[in-house]
Amino acid sequence: MSDILERLADTIDARKGGDADASYVSRLLARGEDAILKKIGEEATETVMAAKDGDRLRIVGETADLWFHCLVMLSHYGLRPTDVLFELKRREGISGIDEKAARAASPRVEAERK
Amino acid sequence: MSDILERLADTIDARKGGDADASYVSRLLARGEDAILKKIGEEATETVMAAKDGDRLRIVGETADLWFHCLVMLSHYGLRPTDVLFELKRREGISGIDEKAARAASPRVEAERK
Amino acid sequence: MSDILERLADTIDARKGGDADASYVSRLLARGEDAILKKIGEEATETVMAAKDGDRLRIVGETADLWFHCLVMLSHYGLRPTDVLFELKRREGISGIDEKAARAASPRVEAERK
Amino acid sequence: MSDILERLADTIDARKGGDADASYVSRLLARGEDAILKKIGEEATETVMAAKDGDRLRIVGETADLWFHCLVMLSHYGLRPTDVLFELKRREGISGIDEKAARAASPRVEAERK
Repeated sequence: MSDILERLADTIDARKGGDADASYVSRLLARGEDAILKKIGEEATETVMAAKDGDRLRIVGETADLWFHCLVMLSHYGLRPTDVLFELKRREGISGIDEKAARAASPRVEAERK
Repeated sequence: MSDILERLADTIDARKGGDADASYVSRLLARGEDAILKKIGEEATETVMAAKDGDRLRIVGETADLWFHCLVMLSHYGLRPTDVLFELKRREGISGIDEKAARAASPRVEAERK
Repeated sequence: MSDILERLADTIDARKGGDADASYVSRLLARGEDAILKKIGEEATETVMAAKDGDRLRIVGETADLWFHCLVMLSHYGLRPTDVLFELKRREGISGIDEKAARAASPRVEAERK
Repeated sequence: MSDILERLADTIDARKGGDADASYVSRLLARGEDAILKKIGEEATETVMAAKDGDRLRIVGETADLWFHCLVMLSHYGLRPTDVLFELKRREGISGIDEKAARAASPRVEAERK
């Protein structure tokens, strides 16, 4: 099932430089960094609002929108969903022994908790 | 690789009601809806900042943080990553024929574009 | 100079139920809560992006957009900018003696720092 | 009432380089750009959540938090609340004649509406 992220990333990468009139993704990629990042903020806000409404169907839909626009953002920076999944797997590998110690081992995550 | 989201969701679900002193996830889940949703806003902002810095390592790390906290949020509402991946797959199925028409078929997505 | 917030609030209040075709504010108010709140998330993200660019002119413009949409939001809930300014003044009054103790006296602010 | 933003800005400016142990603002300013901007994202999310709850007291408190951290951000970039209020006043001056045309006159705002 997770292969869907890879397939979507392939599709998004293929839309780079494509017809902005025919494709939402080509148009968004053509508008550049700020337009793409603005969508991350928008979709995160919409996910939070759907969650506050306790509307599970919309939570799924908005989270899908958020993840989709993360894929567009990753593509813009030449990154792939596997980069993110590998990072999650790396952390899981460490935290298999002891979650608390694992997070303590990540300076970034620790800094964020202060 | 593709199963990491499912395995993380299993781990998060297992942390519900767990020792808040021993586990970051147990602690976050115990703090409830607003604490979890606040993390979505925080991690989205940090992803945007990493992207503005063009720091690809941090982009991956912050996107991993964002997706991880989305998994915690989904768990809070009794949802699974497959729900989101299935929604993405459903849209891909439609958009395989014509992306523009597919998005037009989703009233929510259309409304957002207005 | 701060009277501008009051005057803008008057204008926004007067646009309630107005012609959505003629006024951006009437249109936004007519679209309701989620449309208004989505703008808070959007403008906050744009403020962060302008700041990351170190572009002082855009920082001013985006902060103005953010505060303006806060005024629209306050109007939607029957609130006024003076409510917010009075709250800031109340905190300042306490913190005149000792900022740290003042913040400690606010359970909400303390909870947020944990 | 109207001078509270200016007085807070004075206080914040005076906290630059101050004792990080004694003052929340000195500590936040010392942590730098990303820590300050992260607060903008956090407080915007908390404002949205308070609004979704329809909790007017929390809406006022969270909007106060959001504006306060905007003041800290402005201070970090050598800007003042009057810069933002003057921008709002400038737009009001134009929009006194015709709001729609006024917004159309701002390329930034127009771009955002597309």
